[in-house]
Amino acid sequence: MTQKTDFNFFHPLRVRWAEVDMQRVVFNGNYLLYFDVAFTEYWRATGLRDPLGQQKSGKELFVRKAQIEYHGSAGFDDELNIGVRCAKLGRSSMTINIAIFRGDDHLIDGELIYVYADTQAKKSTPIPDAWRERLAQVERVKPEGV
Amino acid sequence: MTQKTDFNFFHPLRVRWAEVDMQRVVFNGNYLLYFDVAFTEYWRATGLRDPLGQQKSGKELFVRKAQIEYHGSAGFDDELNIGVRCAKLGRSSMTINIAIFRGDDHLIDGELIYVYADTQAKKSTPIPDAWRERLAQVERVKPEGV
Amino acid sequence: MTQKTDFNFFHPLRVRWAEVDMQRVVFNGNYLLYFDVAFTEYWRATGLRDPLGQQKSGKELFVRKAQIEYHGSAGFDDELNIGVRCAKLGRSSMTINIAIFRGDDHLIDGELIYVYADTQAKKSTPIPDAWRERLAQVERVKPEGV
Amino acid sequence: MTQKTDFNFFHPLRVRWAEVDMQRVVFNGNYLLYFDVAFTEYWRATGLRDPLGQQKSGKELFVRKAQIEYHGSAGFDDELNIGVRCAKLGRSSMTINIAIFRGDDHLIDGELIYVYADTQAKKSTPIPDAWRERLAQVERVKPEGV
Repeated sequence: MTQKTDFNFFHPLRVRWAEVDMQRVVFNGNYLLYFDVAFTEYWRATGLRDPLGQQKSGKELFVRKAQIEYHGSAGFDDELNIGVRCAKLGRSSMTINIAIFRGDDHLIDGELIYVYADTQAKKSTPIPDAWRERLAQVERVKPEGV
Repeated sequence: MTQKTDFNFFHPLRVRWAEVDMQRVVFNGNYLLYFDVAFTEYWRATGLRDPLGQQKSGKELFVRKAQIEYHGSAGFDDELNIGVRCAKLGRSSMTINIAIFRGDDHLIDGELIYVYADTQAKKSTPIPDAWRERLAQVERVKPEGV
Repeated sequence: MTQKTDFNFFHPLRVRWAEVDMQRVVFNGNYLLYFDVAFTEYWRATGLRDPLGQQKSGKELFVRKAQIEYHGSAGFDDELNIGVRCAKLGRSSMTINIAIFRGDDHLIDGELIYVYADTQAKKSTPIPDAWRERLAQVERVKPEGV
Repeated sequence: MTQKTDFNFFHPLRVRWAEVDMQRVVFNGNYLLYFDVAFTEYWRATGLRDPLGQQKSGKELFVRKAQIEYHGSAGFDDELNIGVRCAKLGRSSMTINIAIFRGDDHLIDGELIYVYADTQAKKSTPIPDAWRERLAQVERVKPEGV
């Protein structure tokens, strides 16, 4: 069971009008948009170079697999907190766990698997050591009482 | 391994400019939008009453879980074919398998698990027998050579 | 007053679930998405080279001004017809008129002003003569009874 | 010429990855999404009751006309400031002026005309006096040095 204390990083986000559908809840596909926004902020927080800005190096992150579990639903103007953590680092892949909370309500669980790839050769390429070190650092120490 | 012959129903869809990102591929979250469009058309093809139009009955389908595997990427103006099938019917849940093709390229695999729920009581409710019968009928006979 | 007979070209489009908001109508901003889709199809119909595919030439169309008048509102699953015409060609700008109909209901009027620009020099550049000739041809002859 | 000092209210907003297109700028239609977000925050700041939350009263605001001028373009991750002001109040309509800045760059000008309407009768209805008084108050005093 996912808990707030599983995460060292949270990004706050308020639900926009256009993201809500006729069922008066956020359209199910928009959570992947939220995941993307939260992952961008997580990455910024690590201080590592933007993986998408590295287009000159010809290496970029691509999503290989995404999974979402909907436990509850967010509505218009809700203030959400999105927890993000790097759960696993493979040779060229990275597993990111995400959970969305509204206050103490746990609404959404998600998982994104990214692959780091050479865009010319269209082949996966090793994740840089600098990322590996920094991400280990970021995720090692759990804060006491988030 | 997913194949075109796994599906009796396909919905054609052309990628829109606004759906493509700076990596020159469809933004990963937009595939859930495509899944939703294709499922709507699948449902229309069954001839069953629109599950979302039944708001007077107070019963609606909600997505409980979504999964996407990205094998390839679609680009602007690509003409896609989206296969949809009902893979499993539980008492109040429905598993929908989806695959996206561009010509013979198999780009995306997806799975949506819907729950049929009473929106007042906020509880799952049995899938109507009429759906069960019709969906069995739709999925029973595989066409020869799609 | 805009009429169907003002247009030689129409693109059909069905409203998607995710495009509709809690007021049960298409979110006002999504009409610009529809305009873009319809203009893309209009351009394809002219047979001219894709202005956005010309990135090798370093020249592209950019929207300079957009205007929308909302006379009525489209809802989920509505089948719309989007009329598109080139109303005016300047040295480096192009005025596109758009109207959205649902059957005989006239829902939306729009205008897009595009500028053709050199992306390196960041300056406007003359619209090619080939466009000028073809667009004149496309818009000159009104069909009898659309 | 629009200036920062024309506005008493600004909403900050960071451009999301999915909002940017292959031209590496925010897709032209997404600015209406930004306008909507900024207007929501402007309204919150007035302290007036949410015009869209008033669905029990059967009266709601609908956009009647929208206009956008694109002077410059925003890119991924840009931090924008969106100025919003009520420029005019008619009997049942409200003109909202919007401008988007990135630092000192003035990128976008916009205008939204809303109509306050009775959703049952499908007719315009007078704007409440409370809104009129509060909006006059909000817009009367220009701050010195924003």
